[in-house]
Parts: sequence; structure tokens; C-alpha cells
Amino acid sequence: MNESAFIERLRALATHPGARGLNDDAAVIEVGGQGLVLTHDMLVEGVHYLAQDPPETVAWKLVAVNLSDLAAKGARPLGVVLGFALAGDGAWDRAFADGLGKALSHFDTVLLGGDTVAMPAGAPRVLGLTALGLAPEGGAPSRAGAQAGDGLYVSGTIGDAGAGLALLRAGEAQPVTLIDAYRTPMPSLALGQALSPLVSAMADVSDGLLIDAQRIARASGCGIEVALEAVPLSPAFLAAPGDTPENRLFAATSGDDYRLLFTTNPADAEAIADAAAQCAVPITRIGQCIAGDGLRLSHNGAPVPLPPRLGYMHGDAPLS
Amino acid sequence: MNESAFIERLRALATHPGARGLNDDAAVIEVGGQGLVLTHDMLVEGVHYLAQDPPETVAWKLVAVNLSDLAAKGARPLGVVLGFALAGDGAWDRAFADGLGKALSHFDTVLLGGDTVAMPAGAPRVLGLTALGLAPEGGAPSRAGAQAGDGLYVSGTIGDAGAGLALLRAGEAQPVTLIDAYRTPMPSLALGQALSPLVSAMADVSDGLLIDAQRIARASGCGIEVALEAVPLSPAFLAAPGDTPENRLFAATSGDDYRLLFTTNPADAEAIADAAAQCAVPITRIGQCIAGDGLRLSHNGAPVPLPPRLGYMHGDAPLS
Repeated sequence: MNESAFIERLRALATHPGARGLNDDAAVIEVGGQGLVLTHDMLVEGVHYLAQDPPETVAWKLVAVNLSDLAAKGARPLGVVLGFALAGDGAWDRAFADGLGKALSHFDTVLLGGDTVAMPAGAPRVLGLTALGLAPEGGAPSRAGAQAGDGLYVSGTIGDAGAGLALLRAGEAQPVTLIDAYRTPMPSLALGQALSPLVSAMADVSDGLLIDAQRIARASGCGIEVALEAVPLSPAFLAAPGDTPENRLFAATSGDDYRLLFTTNPADAEAIADAAAQCAVPITRIGQCIAGDGLRLSHNGAPVPLPPRLGYMHGDAPLS
Repeated sequence: MNESAFIERLRALATHPGARGLNDDAAVIEVGGQGLVLTHDMLVEGVHYLAQDPPETVAWKLVAVNLSDLAAKGARPLGVVLGFALAGDGAWDRAFADGLGKALSHFDTVLLGGDTVAMPAGAPRVLGLTALGLAPEGGAPSRAGAQAGDGLYVSGTIGDAGAGLALLRAGEAQPVTLIDAYRTPMPSLALGQALSPLVSAMADVSDGLLIDAQRIARASGCGIEVALEAVPLSPAFLAAPGDTPENRLFAATSGDDYRLLFTTNPADAEAIADAAAQCAVPITRIGQCIAGDGLRLSHNGAPVPLPPRLGYMHGDAPLS
């Protein structure tokens, strides 16, 4: 059995409507008449972060990637529960705890509980976090509501974290903007809350812009066109790696962006722009939803074949 | 920094009252006016289960140990969120998924979401589960309410799982009652719900009867006396290892029992007995709460020195 077969088996167990068929960034259940959003993401040393990444940033990333799932549901964080593997390095653990405190404080949320376990000697660290949030009053958006004619938007810039990881793998430590984008991503909580009443579908970009767009298309039963020339790149990315079609494909497939990817009816375009302006986060229209299915790419109007790899897939080779 | 210093650092972050100072089996927060109970326990291959344990039983244990924390809070399970590390063995994963389905179905709960991650080759599996439950109407009992004069009770029998683990380590597979007690523990959900309005403090016995009793004493600010001759042993345990003072100490310190340990005012003794009888679960009075602090042991009235190790501590040596 391969991994997708395993996930299909899990899906068969996830019969509760709140599980959203395991097709969403988070589960949404009702507790006391209040929508509760629930997500769990793990980081594995050498797979999701580099062994030499500073432990403060590993803690930040663990919090950020989970809060990013809450952001995609427009949720307000309630707290987190930590699963921490002790690997016998007290200085690392102390720095991790410091980073955890900073991240929780920055995002105005709290540690509610957790578990610490001892790992066998030499085993890679495995860190888990469950984040809880309150769903917005109008309900949490899903990946499943996009309709033909809706615009496709993304927040912030894309590809910085991927470029940062490539630099780290090559032994570089500059530019720090790109390195930081990889190590200390910034979930878009306020933006997600502001957008949630206005979007038809929303997800965070964790595994890659293209693969996450494809997931929205599949969940919504529509097609999605992405105009690569519109994918927003940062000044640092434009300086290097630089603006080539290949680099735009790299940006759109490299993952770890933790930006919001969403669709909206054209009638809401102005309200969307206002909401983003109030949050002081740039958003960019990068495509649209179309009848049919699947993902289509273009660059300045010319069709671009889909790359074989649309983003990070579970089971991809470890980082190192 | 050692592990207890690390946990102290985490405690400093767990300022929300629902975190209960990380001193309880679970967090209890309020959502929409409803008490929500939240716990996260991890299992590490070679630390919390044996590499050769059947994967169905590993899944069962992962669910059971988390639901046992809910049981100790009198909670009704709402669902679980899984963190699963793929280690490249499809047959193992399939059997795990089957066992997960059986456990969820047995305990009438559901999979709400989760994350699967690929592990580097050769790394031990790390499995995490977050369980959510609804707190009982009168509020979830804590470890902190025991008072001098209260009786100390435990449900079921103690030491079977520890004896089962010792047999497995020695290459034995019999008696199956003890092996099963280690591999497929049974959380006391119905009993926990029935007892919760009647107890002054309650915990599950996960790390060892004595260490968990000591935690109740510390959290409650009282002392606890345990009469070792009263600790309930199963017929299988009495047959072998057998009823010696050493084996009673072994039973009381070996952990993995997942029984309920609780204290109650003597005025509630009859109601407690009725509640247990209705759940068809035996309970046994094994001691009492006293003024002062700390743990005191006796055997047939004679004082017994506290053993150096009261139960499983994080950081104990791996199993193998």
C-alpha cells in the first residue's frame, strides 16, 4: 500500500462532516453552538526543516504552519497543544522553548497542553502541534466553494521560502529575506479573518501554489487557470533567482509560502481589495476559475505545460 | 537544561487557566459555553511500544491512551486528530489504519483530521494523537481536589500491562491476558463519566499507580497513604508473577494500566460503589488522603519505604 492508499483508508474513517473528507486545511466542528477549527501539522527534522536551522525558528515554524491553516479558515486562534520529542540536547530544547514563547506571544495565543517524549538515541526530532481556533460567525470557508468565473487570488509573494531553502542547501545565508521566509513564515491570520466572508474558497499555500490551486479546483469541481506572469515575486526573488519562466515555475511549486490562496466572485473584487488594504497585505489576482476541471498554466498568454511536480508531496525525498 | 527544566519553561507559557498548569491529564477550555477537554499523547516506536507489536494494537493503544485522559476528566469523546509518520512499510500502515478504524468504532468516536509525514529512512515511528471531548456538565474533575480524609480508589486491576511488557521483553507470548493488557489497554470512559460528579480528584494511571498518586497528592496539597496489600491484582498476575511484596511494588510502579485513580469524600462512598456497579467495573479502596504531603506506603500495616522509582518518567531508557 502506498501513501495515497493509506490516506484513502483514513478518509474512510473520517466520516464526520467536520472532517471535511480530509480535503481541507482543518476540521471544523461545532461545540456549544460555536464553530471550532482544528488542525494538526508535524515537522520532522531533515524533512520539514534543516537540522542546522536555529531551534527558535523551528518552534516559530511549528506554530506558524498550524496557525496558517487556521488563517485559511478565517479562524481566531484559541490555543495550541504541543507534542515534543526530546533528543537529549538541552540547549536546543531551551532555545526551542524560547522560540515557542515568542511565537505564541506574537500571535496572541497560548499553550494549552501537550506531551513530551524521549526519542531513541540518534533518531530525528519529530514535533507535532494541534492548533484550535474559533470559526468566523458566518462559517469557515472551505476549499470546495469555487465556481467558474471566480477570480483566483494570492496574498503576499510566492517562492521566497523555496528560494531560501535552496540557498540554505547550497550553504548560503543571504539574502536574509529569503532565508527568513523559509525559517520564520508569517501566517495571515488577520487577512484570513477579513477575507473569510468574501471568498468562495480559501486555502493556505503550504505545499506549493500550483498543487494547492489544483486541490481547490478538485474540491470545488471546477478548473483553474493560473497566469504565471501574474504570480507575485518579491524584490529579493526578482534580484535572484530572477524573473525567468523557469524561476516562476519554481516559485509556484516550491511550497512553504504560507500565503492565502482564494477565489471570489467578481462582484466581491472591490470588497476583497478593501479588506486586504485594511490588513495592509498585498493581494494579487493570478488567475480564474473555469468550467471543467484541472489546472491550466499560461505565461503572457501562451500555454505552459503542467510541470510533473506541482508542489511538495508527502513522500518526497527528505531535504538533506 | 534537563527535561524537567524544559517542562518548567513550557509551564511558564501555559498561563491560560484551561491549561491547568500542565499538571493535569488534559486541558479544559470553554467553547460556546461548553467545556471542551483536550489531550495529546505520542507513542514512539521502541519507547512506548515494541517494534514487533502488531500495528493494529499500536493504533488501538494510541487511541486508548488518549481516550483514557478524557475518561479521567469524565469527558465524552468528540473525535481525534492523528499525526502519523510514514516509515515506508505499506503493510504496517494498512494494518495500523485497520486498527485505528476498529478502535474509533469501538469507542464510538471519529477521525477529524491530521497530518501524515514521511520519516527519514531507518527512523523510529512517532505517532501523535489529539483527542477532544465534551466535559461533564458539572465540570471536569482535576488532580487538585483531594482532601485529607478522602478515600483513594482505583478501578480494575493494576500491573497487568507491566507484567505483559516484561513477558514480551523476555520473548514470551503468554498469558494472553497480560500481553493484551499491555498492547490493547481499555480506557474507562463510561466509568469516568459516572464518577466525575462524585470524585474530589481523578487521574488515569498511565505512568504508574504510585507516581500518579503522588501527582494527585502534590496537585491537591495533601498526603496520600497507599496500602499495597489492597492494590487489586488480576488472577493472571496472581498466578504469575504472583503475590509477593516485590511484585506488588512492581505492579504499583510499572504503568500503562490506564485505570482510573480517584479520591472521594467518605460520604460519597456508597454513591461511588453504585456508579461503579452500574458500569460493571470493579473499584477498590487502596488508601486515603491525609494531612501533610507526600506518599506513604504500607503492606499489611507495616511501613514500606518508597522505591526510588515510582513509575515511568519521561526520559527513562527506551524499551528495547
